[in-house]
Amino acid sequence: ETSAKVIDGKAVAKQIRDEITSEISRMRDAIGKVPGLAVILVGDRKDSATYVRNKKKACEAVGITSYEVRLPEDSTEQELLKYIAEFNANPSVHGILIQLPLPRHMDEENILNAVRIEKDVDGFHPLNIGRLAMRGREPLFVPCTPKGCIELLHRYGISIKGKRAVVIGRSNIVGMPAALLLQREDATISIIHSSTENREEITRQADIIISAAGQANMVRGSWIKPGAVIIDVGINPVDDPNSPRGYRLVGDVCYDEACKIASAITPVPGGVGPMTIAMLLSNTLSSAKRALNFE
Amino acid sequence: ETSAKVIDGKAVAKQIRDEITSEISRMRDAIGKVPGLAVILVGDRKDSATYVRNKKKACEAVGITSYEVRLPEDSTEQELLKYIAEFNANPSVHGILIQLPLPRHMDEENILNAVRIEKDVDGFHPLNIGRLAMRGREPLFVPCTPKGCIELLHRYGISIKGKRAVVIGRSNIVGMPAALLLQREDATISIIHSSTENREEITRQADIIISAAGQANMVRGSWIKPGAVIIDVGINPVDDPNSPRGYRLVGDVCYDEACKIASAITPVPGGVGPMTIAMLLSNTLSSAKRALNFE
Ligand SMILES: NC(=O)C1=CN([C@@H]2O[C@H](COP(=O)(O)OP(=O)(O)OC[C@H]3O[C@@H](n4cnc5c(N)ncnc54)[C@H](OP(=O)(O)O)[C@@H]3O)[C@@H](O)[C@H]2O)C=CC1
Ligand SMILES: NC(=O)C1=CN([C@@H]2O[C@H](COP(=O)(O)OP(=O)(O)OC[C@H]3O[C@@H](n4cnc5c(N)ncnc54)[C@H](OP(=O)(O)O)[C@@H]3O)[C@@H](O)[C@H]2O)C=CC1
Repeated sequence: ETSAKVIDGKAVAKQIRDEITSEISRMRDAIGKVPGLAVILVGDRKDSATYVRNKKKACEAVGITSYEVRLPEDSTEQELLKYIAEFNANPSVHGILIQLPLPRHMDEENILNAVRIEKDVDGFHPLNIGRLAMRGREPLFVPCTPKGCIELLHRYGISIKGKRAVVIGRSNIVGMPAALLLQREDATISIIHSSTENREEITRQADIIISAAGQANMVRGSWIKPGAVIIDVGINPVDDPNSPRGYRLVGDVCYDEACKIASAITPVPGGVGPMTIAMLLSNTLSSAKRALNFE
Repeated sequence: ETSAKVIDGKAVAKQIRDEITSEISRMRDAIGKVPGLAVILVGDRKDSATYVRNKKKACEAVGITSYEVRLPEDSTEQELLKYIAEFNANPSVHGILIQLPLPRHMDEENILNAVRIEKDVDGFHPLNIGRLAMRGREPLFVPCTPKGCIELLHRYGISIKGKRAVVIGRSNIVGMPAALLLQREDATISIIHSSTENREEITRQADIIISAAGQANMVRGSWIKPGAVIIDVGINPVDDPNSPRGYRLVGDVCYDEACKIASAITPVPGGVGPMTIAMLLSNTLSSAKRALNFE
C-alpha cells in the first residue's frame, strides 16, 4: 500500500518568508526603504482580530512595516473610506487590506473598490480578476490563497499543463481565481459547486484537485483518481471531545482515505493555510518593488 | 432515427431586433432621443469593412444612430485615441466599437482600455470581464457572441442550472466569457483548449456544448452525448468547388453527424452569427437607457 507524499505548506511558506526577508534587506540596503502594509479592521470579531494580529506579526518578521487601523463596529462607510484614501495617498504604504467580513451596514463592493488598484495586494479588485481571466493580460496581484495553491504545485515540481484539474468551489476569493490560474497554466479545468450533479464522478477524473468548498471530509477516497494531487483549502471545525477546545480543524478532503490513493496531498492544518500569508507578504513586496522601481 | 431540433438564430435575432425597434420608438416618443453607436475602423481590411457596414445597416434598421470613423492603416495611436476621447465625451454616443484586429503597430490593450467603461458595448474591458467572473457583481455589458449563445438557450427553453456544459475554446471574446456566463447560470463547466487531452471523452460528458475553436468539423458524432444541445460558434471556410466563391462556411461541429445525436443544434450559418449583431444592438440600447435614465 502506498502513501501520498505530504505537501508541506508550512515548510514551503517558511522558505518563501526567508526569501522575502532577504529581498527586503537587499532593498533596505540599496534604497533605504522597505515595503509597507496597511490593515484595516472594523468591529471586534475575535477571529478577524486574530487574523489581523497574525498578519502583523508575519509582516514584522520579514521586515515589512505594518500599519493598523481599528474602527468600531458602528463606524460609517465615510469614516472607513477616509482611512482608505489616506493609505491610498501614503507613499510608504504599498498594500492595503480590508479585513472581511465588514459589518452588515457597509457596502463591501463599494469599500473594496476604493482601494487603489496598485495597492490591492489581496487581488480582489474586479480589474485584477478580469485580467486574470483574460489571455494576454497580466493582473497586478493574484489573490493570495489560490496563488499559494499554485505555488505549492510549482515548488513540488507538479506539472499543470494539459492536466485535468477539478476545482471544488467557485468563491471570488478562492475557487474561481484558482480555476483561472490553473487554466492560465494550460490545465483543462472543471468547476464544481453546490448545483453540480455527479461531484464524485467529475472529481475522479482529475489529475489535480483543489478543494475549497468548506465541507468537512466531503471528498472521500472513492472520489479520487489513483495518483492524483490534492490541494485542500478547506478549514472546517469538527467536534472533538478529546481536544481541549472541543473541536479540531479538518479539510474538505478525508485525509486518511486520500493518503492511500493520491500521489501527493496538503494536510490541514499546515498545507495551504501558511501559504496564504506568505503570498500576502510576497504581493506586498512586489507592490513595493513596482512602486519604488526596484528590481 | 431522430433528428435534432434546429436552433434558428436568424429567426430569434429577427425577433430580438423587432423588440429593440419597438423599445427605441417608445424611447423616441417618450424623451425624443435614440441610442447612438460609434464604430471606428482603422485600415482597409475587406472583412472588417464588411462587418462595419453590416453593423451600420443593423443599427439603422432598428433606429440606432450610427457614427462611423475610418482611419488610414498608418494612423497613429494618438489619432485613434483622439477619436475615442471625442466619442467618450459625446452624450449622443452610447456605445463605441473599435473594429478588430487593429494594425500591428497599435497596442490593442491600450486602445480598448481607452473606451469609457459605460460605452464598452463589446464588453471586452477587463473590469467587465472581472465582474462577469465574480459572484455578486454585475458587468455593465456582456460580450455579444457569448451573450447570444446563452440567449438562444433561454429562448429555446433549455435549462442550464446543474447541467454539464463543455466550452471548446477559451478566447477573451467568445470561449472564456461563454464559460463564465454558463457558470453564472449554475452549469458545471469544463473548458477545452489546444492543450487539452481527451477532448472527445470530455465533450461527450456535456449536456450543453458551446464550441468556439475555429476548427472545421472537429466535433464529430462520437464526441456528442445523445440528447446534448449544441451551440456552434465556429465559422470556418472549407474548399467547395461547387460554390461560386470556391469555398463555403461550416462550423466546428460536423453538422450532419451531430443532427442524428444531439437534441438541438445551431446551424452555420444562421445560428450564432446573426445573434452577435442583435446582442450588440441590445447592449447599445441598454447603455442608452442607463445613460438617459429611461426604463
Ligand atoms: N487556507 C486558507 O488560507 C483559506 C481557507 N479557506 C477555507 O476554504 C473553504 C472555502 O472558503 P470560501 O471559498 O471563502 O467559501 P465560500 O463559502 O465562499 O465558497 C464555497 C464554495 O464551495 C461550494 N460548495 C459548498 N458546498 C459544496 C458542496 N457540498 N459541493 C460542492 N460545492 C460546494 C459553493 O458553491 P456555490 O457557489 O454554488 O454556493 C461555493 O462556491 C473554507 O473552508 C474556508 O475556511 C478560505 C480562505 C483562505
Ligand atoms: N458567430 C459569431 O458571431 C462569431 C464567430 N466566431 C468564430 O468562432 C471561432 C472562434 O473564434 P475566436 O474565439 O475568436 O478564436 P481564437 O482563435 O481566438 O480562439 C480559439 C480557441 O479555441 C482553442 N482551440 C483551437 N484549436 C483547438 C482544437 N483543435 N481543440 C481544442 N481547442 C482548440 C484555442 O485554444 P488555445 O487557447 O489553447 O490556443 C483557443 O482558445 C472562429 O471560427 C470564429 O470565426 C468568432 C466570433 C464571433
